[in-house]
Amino acid sequence: MEQIKEGWFYENNELWHGERFSLEVEEILHHQKSFYQDILVLRTKSHGKALILDGIIQCTEKDEFSYQEMISFLPLCAHPNPSKVLIVGGGDGGVAREVVKHPLVKEVVQVEIDEDVIEVCKKYLPSMAQGFSSPKLNLKICDGFEYIKNCSHTFDVIITDSSDPIGPAVNLYTNDYFEMLRGALKPDGIICSQGGTFWSQLEHIKNTIANCKKSFGTVKYAWSSVPTYPTGQIGFILATVKENVIFERPQFVFTPNKIELLQLKYYNSNIHEAAFILPNFVKKELGG
Amino acid sequence: MEQIKEGWFYENNELWHGERFSLEVEEILHHQKSFYQDILVLRTKSHGKALILDGIIQCTEKDEFSYQEMISFLPLCAHPNPSKVLIVGGGDGGVAREVVKHPLVKEVVQVEIDEDVIEVCKKYLPSMAQGFSSPKLNLKICDGFEYIKNCSHTFDVIITDSSDPIGPAVNLYTNDYFEMLRGALKPDGIICSQGGTFWSQLEHIKNTIANCKKSFGTVKYAWSSVPTYPTGQIGFILATVKENVIFERPQFVFTPNKIELLQLKYYNSNIHEAAFILPNFVKKELGG
Repeated sequence: MEQIKEGWFYENNELWHGERFSLEVEEILHHQKSFYQDILVLRTKSHGKALILDGIIQCTEKDEFSYQEMISFLPLCAHPNPSKVLIVGGGDGGVAREVVKHPLVKEVVQVEIDEDVIEVCKKYLPSMAQGFSSPKLNLKICDGFEYIKNCSHTFDVIITDSSDPIGPAVNLYTNDYFEMLRGALKPDGIICSQGGTFWSQLEHIKNTIANCKKSFGTVKYAWSSVPTYPTGQIGFILATVKENVIFERPQFVFTPNKIELLQLKYYNSNIHEAAFILPNFVKKELGG
Repeated sequence: MEQIKEGWFYENNELWHGERFSLEVEEILHHQKSFYQDILVLRTKSHGKALILDGIIQCTEKDEFSYQEMISFLPLCAHPNPSKVLIVGGGDGGVAREVVKHPLVKEVVQVEIDEDVIEVCKKYLPSMAQGFSSPKLNLKICDGFEYIKNCSHTFDVIITDSSDPIGPAVNLYTNDYFEMLRGALKPDGIICSQGGTFWSQLEHIKNTIANCKKSFGTVKYAWSSVPTYPTGQIGFILATVKENVIFERPQFVFTPNKIELLQLKYYNSNIHEAAFILPNFVKKELGG
């Protein structure tokens, strides 16, 4: 617990040397080491409850909706009929909560390796973990790699809600992984993976896109504003086998009524289109 | 200098309780108290040099271009002929550097109250302070309020590059100030002011817009990603006297060649349009 000093939690961050974000702690709600990682839940002064894995903030109640909605609805709404969806990771339940809101989604499989994260979130972060109680969801506790390997052209959309590319998650940014996803995806399916921030990881994003392009014909980077992630900005890599697919124009539009009813706090069709628009210094590196 | 501890600078932040951003310090380049404020320049480990006024990060070399380009080109490119421009504040020179790049800008007046900030930036942050050497610029060291009061329908665009609404800058968010700006603006002129972040200051933004609407017929909020500002997101209030003016569609478009030549690292016409698109939770509060 050396990351908490004088009432403040300091993010431990190998990827972002020289900068640090911290949150004032009201109460430590839970702390354990699971078989896979260090799990910490805090009640913070300003951001509601926060889930921290291996010293890195995964989500806070204040701003998690931006990430969860965007990683879900960018690929779902870019697809004409996202009937069958796979979520890899996402142990807090927030992505499942969003994915099942899409009216065309019939069936969701989620593979998460660490059951302890799920149990902790059910207990302390029910606003996210509510995703686990959907009748559309089939939750499997297993290694995502093993599961995906055995799927053959099964899914319309595959969302990889992973942590950053340090430690075990590094494998989720390789061509081997993207090639496996292609095998598990229907021919017109779309993948969406957490893609890093253009402010600090442009080289990493470039490499990930290059890895992804070996298996997919259309690969795009989109982004959102999430204050508690480093630099306050995070991206998503979307890809599909066919070339020149336009992810930017949503195939499905949530009406204002539906947005209200389904409690979409961030995502709408205009935000969808805007998410693919990049600053010049990013365009220059990534193209497009 | 109690904000620097064990080699890290911790932002002192009354407006953002419970969260804190910090930068690792390589060297303290300058520290003084001017008549108006505490001025600190650091060489940081990851963000180049940083200017800090009264304990709050104003800009770092790594990401300042996003703020400076957006606060300048959103109003300039929304105007069909922004010939005469007033900059209020902006003592680091970054806004002047951008404003003079616009080919239709003929004359720029800048009023900054604290000459010491300008001198410090000329010495330590020449990449920003280069704005001061433009022949288009007429720099005046004086109180912006006093200057504006005596202008009558003089400017096409007025940019207020101010600090956050604590301390003296609080006056720059009142109706009195907006009313003064209206008096100094040509009838079809556009103002643009630093507008705060929707993640933490939504109530403040709402109030500012309400104050602004008492003097202007069209008032809009646009935003950009700036990692070293709290929440990593900052907004701009644009306004003009006439109702139903479309700021979203730029009147002037920088070609890819011009973007390269003028070293625009963030702003382009697509970014301009996207900047006005808001997440649902913001739209709900601000309308539009």
